[in-house]
Amino acid sequence: MRAVVLSIGSELISGLRLDTHATEIARALGAQGIEVVRHETLDDDAQAIAESLRAAAEEADVIVATGGLGPTPDDRTRDGLAEAMDTPLEPHPEAVAMLETWAASRHRALSETDMRQALFPHGAEPLQNPLGSAPGIRARLNTAEVFCLPGVPTEMHAMLTEQVLPRLRARTPTRPDECRGRVRTVRTFGLPESVVGERLADLMVLGRHPRVATAAHMGTIDVHIHATGPGEEVDRLLATDAAEIKRRLGQVVFGEGETRMEDAVAALLAKCGATVAVAESCTGGLVTARLVNVPGISDHLLEGVVAYSNASKVRALGVDKDLLAEHGAVSEPVVRAMAEGIRDRAGADFAVAVTGIAGPGGGTPDKPAGTVWFALADAGGVRTFCEVFSGDRAHVRERSATYALNLLRLCLLEEGEAG
Amino acid sequence: MRAVVLSIGSELISGLRLDTHATEIARALGAQGIEVVRHETLDDDAQAIAESLRAAAEEADVIVATGGLGPTPDDRTRDGLAEAMDTPLEPHPEAVAMLETWAASRHRALSETDMRQALFPHGAEPLQNPLGSAPGIRARLNTAEVFCLPGVPTEMHAMLTEQVLPRLRARTPTRPDECRGRVRTVRTFGLPESVVGERLADLMVLGRHPRVATAAHMGTIDVHIHATGPGEEVDRLLATDAAEIKRRLGQVVFGEGETRMEDAVAALLAKCGATVAVAESCTGGLVTARLVNVPGISDHLLEGVVAYSNASKVRALGVDKDLLAEHGAVSEPVVRAMAEGIRDRAGADFAVAVTGIAGPGGGTPDKPAGTVWFALADAGGVRTFCEVFSGDRAHVRERSATYALNLLRLCLLEEGEAG
Repeated sequence: MRAVVLSIGSELISGLRLDTHATEIARALGAQGIEVVRHETLDDDAQAIAESLRAAAEEADVIVATGGLGPTPDDRTRDGLAEAMDTPLEPHPEAVAMLETWAASRHRALSETDMRQALFPHGAEPLQNPLGSAPGIRARLNTAEVFCLPGVPTEMHAMLTEQVLPRLRARTPTRPDECRGRVRTVRTFGLPESVVGERLADLMVLGRHPRVATAAHMGTIDVHIHATGPGEEVDRLLATDAAEIKRRLGQVVFGEGETRMEDAVAALLAKCGATVAVAESCTGGLVTARLVNVPGISDHLLEGVVAYSNASKVRALGVDKDLLAEHGAVSEPVVRAMAEGIRDRAGADFAVAVTGIAGPGGGTPDKPAGTVWFALADAGGVRTFCEVFSGDRAHVRERSATYALNLLRLCLLEEGEAG
Repeated sequence: MRAVVLSIGSELISGLRLDTHATEIARALGAQGIEVVRHETLDDDAQAIAESLRAAAEEADVIVATGGLGPTPDDRTRDGLAEAMDTPLEPHPEAVAMLETWAASRHRALSETDMRQALFPHGAEPLQNPLGSAPGIRARLNTAEVFCLPGVPTEMHAMLTEQVLPRLRARTPTRPDECRGRVRTVRTFGLPESVVGERLADLMVLGRHPRVATAAHMGTIDVHIHATGPGEEVDRLLATDAAEIKRRLGQVVFGEGETRMEDAVAALLAKCGATVAVAESCTGGLVTARLVNVPGISDHLLEGVVAYSNASKVRALGVDKDLLAEHGAVSEPVVRAMAEGIRDRAGADFAVAVTGIAGPGGGTPDKPAGTVWFALADAGGVRTFCEVFSGDRAHVRERSATYALNLLRLCLLEEGEAG
């Protein structure tokens, strides 16, 4: 099965807002073995929407569109779909009932504007929206099944999961001998992309199956393995390549698929039964916030301190004033004292500290913007590291946070092996 | 002038990676008065790339494509462009020279694979890549000007800014009486989208010029004003509408355009010469990290504490143990004590505290997941607020961080008016 994903909205097309829906939908469809062949982003223009829907129906079995279902006049997806289906819009009794239930739950009356959301192309059916007013639309356009979902992220997400995917699952091949395309991803941090590429050169040659490709983002190098064939055969091919890639790359592999660096760290903290505390300066809370991304981290994360000023490095972490005066806030002795200070005060098994110059200002010839010191403290002492990152302020901070978490991961791996 | 933006890469189409390039390019083109009419995301497939380039050349004056220019076999943009132009690929002497310079600067020899990057469709010209090996491509396809840039974010960004925009600027109308489309955005937080819509109903009617539309994201409601016409006229129309919208919405407006909530807060902190400290639990450092997004915040941000465990609420913030035992960590008395504790310890003028249940677990019938308590402390005392947010863990945390910053903003506004 082939799918086209359409994102509709003038705020997307003009770049006022980043579209994350197409990515989420493509992943979800891919996980069900449905191949996405194209994304397209369109303006709120009924004519353009109709043309794109028609073109998509020529090449795909499934079309998922988001946006343009609200009550305001700039919401034109209903009109575009009706035009593509060559049928008028008319109130759909079930959609009217959904709107009435929604309004009653909020103790408000339905205006004429609200009622626009119940206008459906003839033959289309409404999809329940559990979080907002606008029902989704399911329709048939030639041989393609069309799903239109609201653009509000929480509503889109809920309806994709609860309404669209279960309906598609019923249509997706489940016999193990049926052909499907699958991707498996091995995630790494700590080697440049060119070195990863050299170690995997023979797996990455053109024409090889499975296809192996790398993609770099903020220092993380993902190795994607693509295979096509009967279900069990594909799983076996992917497993063989994944195992070989992990063998060659060793400890720089931190996980597979959707695993984030913080998930890998949290799993090791749980395995070791260890606690951690964090002291941050330039990352300003990002390291701690990344750990808190993981539900259940409260058993292991004791405390984070963002000691952004020198005064707070002294007060909250016990860094010696003279050390700051002599070496500056971005220095080996200071990052060491930060890690020792937070580990001691929080009573944690491990502590991570980060201090650096995120830029754009603040750099000197000795310490250019992008210079970041890291320290990792455990019962055995403190280890320190220095890196000079390129890129803008956001890039330096994000990459520093991943680097700090990776240090903790490597240390926990050692701990696990020793224990 | 009209533009189409193409993003090329199997990792984009399958949702393995989020495409942020199209958004960046659309914004940059829009700022130069070039209207983006469509984005499309494509697989690394020469045939599909050729077809999309041909279709885009029918509807646009400018095509900007990213991705697929690297040396590996899955990079197919060169082949697609050659096919669309109906001309063979051949080594381009200037591109060869660029590659040789790049290799020399890295003390490495050029492999046959590397040299693929110097193959150009006949008639195309190379664009200097200041950060990587793959030169960009500039070509003409019928009446459209085509720019192909690498997919690596830092390279794409540098080449868009240094190579593409200056060349387009030469083609963009600069006489003030020439027609152009412009967008101005008023950003708000604190009112639901429906209420913003009601207050602006007469400005949002279909067919009005300028066109006024709202877009919601994580509780922030953006009001976009779109106008077309001669340059000065457009600026005047946008200014009139922006002023009227701000008048009607009052203090919920926190800025315009690219202004983030943290930028608004930082500007007010600077204006008042005030300092702030932050105590966080469920947001886990996000409030502090958002403030640190703003360069120069070190003059105003003294300290942030992520007191994720009860023990650290006691130790690092001085919250009374009995208070925690009696009311629980997510409660009015505890959030109040957190704000008082951090303000006192850091010696700050203002303090913000957040404690809540981000979910998915941890909720009770009394305190469902999504329940978040906020406190704002200043010399006059402490004010507390409670909200119950819907959505997943990431959504609750992100929205809570914006809510906390907004409380600080409103308090600083009062301060500014009183002072």
